[in-house]
Amino acid sequence: MDYVYGPGKNHLFVPGPVNIPEPSGTGAWESALTNTLSPGDRTVSFLIGQFSLLWIDQQQRLNFNVDVVESEWGQGANLDILAEKLAADHSHTIKAICIVHNETATGVTNNLATVRKLLDHYRHPALLLVDGVSSICALDFRMDEWGVDVALTGSQKALSLPTGLGIVCASPKALEASKSAKSVRVFFDWNDYLKFYKLGTFWPYTPSIQLLYGLRAALDLIFEEGLDNVIARHTRMGKATRLAVEAWGLKNCTQKEEWYSDTVTAVLVPPYIDSAEIVKRAWKRYNMSLGLGLNKVAGKVFRIGHLGNLNELQLLGCLAGVEMILKDVGYPVKLGSGVAAACAYLQNNIPMIPSRI
Amino acid sequence: MDYVYGPGKNHLFVPGPVNIPEPSGTGAWESALTNTLSPGDRTVSFLIGQFSLLWIDQQQRLNFNVDVVESEWGQGANLDILAEKLAADHSHTIKAICIVHNETATGVTNNLATVRKLLDHYRHPALLLVDGVSSICALDFRMDEWGVDVALTGSQKALSLPTGLGIVCASPKALEASKSAKSVRVFFDWNDYLKFYKLGTFWPYTPSIQLLYGLRAALDLIFEEGLDNVIARHTRMGKATRLAVEAWGLKNCTQKEEWYSDTVTAVLVPPYIDSAEIVKRAWKRYNMSLGLGLNKVAGKVFRIGHLGNLNELQLLGCLAGVEMILKDVGYPVKLGSGVAAACAYLQNNIPMIPSRI
Amino acid sequence: MDYVYGPGKNHLFVPGPVNIPEPSGTGAWESALTNTLSPGDRTVSFLIGQFSLLWIDQQQRLNFNVDVVESEWGQGANLDILAEKLAADHSHTIKAICIVHNETATGVTNNLATVRKLLDHYRHPALLLVDGVSSICALDFRMDEWGVDVALTGSQKALSLPTGLGIVCASPKALEASKSAKSVRVFFDWNDYLKFYKLGTFWPYTPSIQLLYGLRAALDLIFEEGLDNVIARHTRMGKATRLAVEAWGLKNCTQKEEWYSDTVTAVLVPPYIDSAEIVKRAWKRYNMSLGLGLNKVAGKVFRIGHLGNLNELQLLGCLAGVEMILKDVGYPVKLGSGVAAACAYLQNNIPMIPSRI
Amino acid sequence: MDYVYGPGKNHLFVPGPVNIPEPSGTGAWESALTNTLSPGDRTVSFLIGQFSLLWIDQQQRLNFNVDVVESEWGQGANLDILAEKLAADHSHTIKAICIVHNETATGVTNNLATVRKLLDHYRHPALLLVDGVSSICALDFRMDEWGVDVALTGSQKALSLPTGLGIVCASPKALEASKSAKSVRVFFDWNDYLKFYKLGTFWPYTPSIQLLYGLRAALDLIFEEGLDNVIARHTRMGKATRLAVEAWGLKNCTQKEEWYSDTVTAVLVPPYIDSAEIVKRAWKRYNMSLGLGLNKVAGKVFRIGHLGNLNELQLLGCLAGVEMILKDVGYPVKLGSGVAAACAYLQNNIPMIPSRI
Repeated sequence: MDYVYGPGKNHLFVPGPVNIPEPSGTGAWESALTNTLSPGDRTVSFLIGQFSLLWIDQQQRLNFNVDVVESEWGQGANLDILAEKLAADHSHTIKAICIVHNETATGVTNNLATVRKLLDHYRHPALLLVDGVSSICALDFRMDEWGVDVALTGSQKALSLPTGLGIVCASPKALEASKSAKSVRVFFDWNDYLKFYKLGTFWPYTPSIQLLYGLRAALDLIFEEGLDNVIARHTRMGKATRLAVEAWGLKNCTQKEEWYSDTVTAVLVPPYIDSAEIVKRAWKRYNMSLGLGLNKVAGKVFRIGHLGNLNELQLLGCLAGVEMILKDVGYPVKLGSGVAAACAYLQNNIPMIPSRI
Repeated sequence: MDYVYGPGKNHLFVPGPVNIPEPSGTGAWESALTNTLSPGDRTVSFLIGQFSLLWIDQQQRLNFNVDVVESEWGQGANLDILAEKLAADHSHTIKAICIVHNETATGVTNNLATVRKLLDHYRHPALLLVDGVSSICALDFRMDEWGVDVALTGSQKALSLPTGLGIVCASPKALEASKSAKSVRVFFDWNDYLKFYKLGTFWPYTPSIQLLYGLRAALDLIFEEGLDNVIARHTRMGKATRLAVEAWGLKNCTQKEEWYSDTVTAVLVPPYIDSAEIVKRAWKRYNMSLGLGLNKVAGKVFRIGHLGNLNELQLLGCLAGVEMILKDVGYPVKLGSGVAAACAYLQNNIPMIPSRI
Repeated sequence: MDYVYGPGKNHLFVPGPVNIPEPSGTGAWESALTNTLSPGDRTVSFLIGQFSLLWIDQQQRLNFNVDVVESEWGQGANLDILAEKLAADHSHTIKAICIVHNETATGVTNNLATVRKLLDHYRHPALLLVDGVSSICALDFRMDEWGVDVALTGSQKALSLPTGLGIVCASPKALEASKSAKSVRVFFDWNDYLKFYKLGTFWPYTPSIQLLYGLRAALDLIFEEGLDNVIARHTRMGKATRLAVEAWGLKNCTQKEEWYSDTVTAVLVPPYIDSAEIVKRAWKRYNMSLGLGLNKVAGKVFRIGHLGNLNELQLLGCLAGVEMILKDVGYPVKLGSGVAAACAYLQNNIPMIPSRI
Repeated sequence: MDYVYGPGKNHLFVPGPVNIPEPSGTGAWESALTNTLSPGDRTVSFLIGQFSLLWIDQQQRLNFNVDVVESEWGQGANLDILAEKLAADHSHTIKAICIVHNETATGVTNNLATVRKLLDHYRHPALLLVDGVSSICALDFRMDEWGVDVALTGSQKALSLPTGLGIVCASPKALEASKSAKSVRVFFDWNDYLKFYKLGTFWPYTPSIQLLYGLRAALDLIFEEGLDNVIARHTRMGKATRLAVEAWGLKNCTQKEEWYSDTVTAVLVPPYIDSAEIVKRAWKRYNMSLGLGLNKVAGKVFRIGHLGNLNELQLLGCLAGVEMILKDVGYPVKLGSGVAAACAYLQNNIPMIPSRI
């Protein structure tokens, strides 16, 4: 690629390359699985919400032998059962642990450090495949320290880019596994990427250049703010949202503090309210997009996403809007109560903007 | 999607959907094949250049039984051999004909109408799968009249959009075939799309909304110009380019007029010149991007793409540049000769711009 | 201009026009004055804040005989004195009434209908020149009904465009006056515009085409929302802001309800607080831009602008931010109080978005 | 201004500044004149084409005593007469020399170095006011070496920005003159700018921030290419254009080589052709914008602009188009002749692009 300026327009008379791969999200899942595993391989997967459910569905359709560990929606991955399974698996039939770092449907963050500890404790060689779609670049994520073998995310989440880019990061161990993995794959085959990478032309098919430039810019913004500051900002916004929910007298779908997500909060509504009505009103009257409750929690929760290129005052406008909507649908909220609770916390915790001090 | 204006910013507090499929080019090939065929199925595929070669490679890696019909590079698909194969295939072992409408590596356009005639003549039920990547919206393409079962293209060619979108169009017969096709597929599975289409939410994963808006705009531009006018414009530019090549005393890689492509021209250089040197000089000195010769024709041809949002004066600037480069590399071209030949034709054939008459 | 699509790039080989006039704001003032008046002409001008002050300064520097009617800052134009002056001016020495519709420094909206009534009552032929910079397209403004002779605004206010465009609208009476006005003017001379308008080429110098396209788009958005709805939205936001100010226990700089502005609210702070500190903190800590107090009210007021492409939840985020800042600087605000007051009003008054019902 | 990134959206709740001055071209002329001269002051101005004519018209309307030195259109400023006037002006009645560096209507570049030499030779204190609209950043221009007192240009020429910005550069001597200049001015008054510059807030009214960012980017591009390379590129394109004109058998409107402009070429057509017809056809059939002949040379010349962000192949496409148009209108041009002449020169003179070597 040519980043350096030449005067006038470039005269583009190439016939154009034919193909462009944009594996992303679902595609990134498939890329992670088919490059490291063979049909029939046993995976341990945690079902804790709609997105982990969809990934499990994919694993089954790709003919893996999926050992599903289910939790009540609102709870995190059941790592006690993982411990048991690892302890019992002397012959190492488990080839991979598949886990969603942050389950977007319920606002649950799983503890990856513990997963690693268990694998180490039982000296188990299973690969650790992590969906970091709604966590990476927003929550603390440590590929090396936690021994993650494949981490994946998409452009449209914490990176705040348009949709279209899936990012898959593989450990040396995962790359080694790809040499013997027998799953059929062409579009997602890492070998094609590695081959062209070595050739110095980098891409087996035309990449989405505009998104690559976008990724460069997105990372520059993150580095300019400082990744630690980005994570701290998400921590503040998660905390502020939970304080507002509490002030409204509502419950968090996430059942324990250890699983609270700082990128999304799923709010439980009383039985006499349909949470879909809240989302609909937000859209139709207040020009606000909230997340629906999905599948098992449909009608029961609405979700407030608070990730990406977002700041505190934007969140407070959202919380004020939610208060009006709650009143609209008949919930006896005290107007201003959630905003006040969030403000009381934020007012003491928002740092000065370094470049403006 | 909401096209209608609401004042102020939309308050986006969704957790964001997780996944985005952007099958495109290579992905679109895989989508067409895995949704309509089962492992072991026999396909007849024509090898006439680098892109048909890559598609054949994919078919083999996906475990189809590929019956390769090879032509010399510079020739079109050998339809006589297709006729023989169809005539001999009484038991209908051929499940699909896979053909690239316009082979971008050699500037060869295949005759799809004849393919359909042969299938009809032999009453053969094989599916007709067409790569229209460098033809659709630039060359005459008739899905219904030619009985094409799957047609595919990408956003980054005649539609003149950024890369990232693969467009796959299936006939009712192809949809029917997808019900029994046993190839493993998840990311590319049409069923997921059809399911959400019926639900009215349209997408199984988050689509690349910016490219869908772009597609809407690109189609508006094409309809505003008129699809017939778009095709006529490509016809003019193909013809003008070939007249220039002839005036330079060089040969077209495409061996017969019936196969001439109006979207790309591959120009043969004399043996004492390395065509890669031409492409390199174009880039390094004239800020012009030409296409390299690929694989069997590497070093032997350079390619002039003339498709998409392009007009005659842009092409003439390119041709003038090629003349200088030919001189740079030692070919005894008469400066102005190709431009003059192209101009003599264009001057009598460019129509007035309707909106400006 | 050519709005219709031609394929490829336009080949721009004009030498380029030399000059581009972008009279705007200050320039629009000068345009209004120099085209309708002669040096020494008597104008009646109302000094009620910083922007009316600047306009008066311009009138004096342009050598008009300015009869200044001053009010305390926070009050509207003193129309009783205008009545007296008109009553006494039997010989019609007053050539123009210069009035700012909405004084942005103090959040005061003047009553133009009354100005017109007085002029009619006294059958006075003075021109009515109106600065509508922070009112037109946000507040109710009636050029014809109120007999405004010159109305002016800029692109960067309620039109929500980038800066750069001044818009000046003249009545037939103003155009007639321009024929005998003796003020020296070239760049701003209406005659040059009228001459080219009649020729059908419209502009005496190259206009800022990008802003003209932007203006077309901005007006489309306003018409799509409906001008009445736009005005109603500003009314809601003005009212909501004032309710919040009241709930905070603070005073509006504007002394009477009849002058309340729905596009900007100037908030008085207690004497022990420097309002500039509030604006500084908003910027440095909360990434929010508030307006400073200017000149006579420097340090005493901060200003909340609520005009243009803005909606209620954005405003509530701002109000929540102001509450935190007030607390930061030592004012004993009850967090959530202003937001609650605003929400209580808004929750009953925000209409459904028509396109989403 | 704040160039540093803060996460999320800035919360813009300022009332908005009221005024934006964008003096440009005509406005920049007025700025240069009214800030340095008083009504009745004698200026020496050279009338050599439409744009110098318009400036002279402005000078007269602003009540200066304009001593017009007229040349035949196609010739440069008559500096012999300037010498005579300076020699005779013992009492220094001449307050300013007003000269257009590059007259865009005729493609004539005046020799500013000689103007300076004459002023120095006669030890004459007149100010040197230069319109550099179609020269600065494209032709060699030396503010200090040539002792230019006011230089002006616009954003929409060699800077390749959108219209809207006038740039006026004043020498210390010009600033000194502004202290005693008695021309009435408000919008253009340098004092307001200097006052706010000293205050550190820089602008008396809201500037067009988007164009200031654009200017920063435009200058970065120029510095990246290197100003010398930019000028050399314009020299090549001017020369190439003139060689084509000669090959077509047509005459340059510019009568002597010393006045040839490297930013615009005015081409004389034979008497039996209306040059406006050429411009019209270029637009209606070839989607190309050429410049009309203006005023005295209307119908007699068409103009090819070759300045700004433009390269050689774009120019060659233009020249090929002109050849077709000349044939369209009945001029017996040999197709390819002009392109060939330009190519023969360019092929030996275009340097490698440094970043791509």
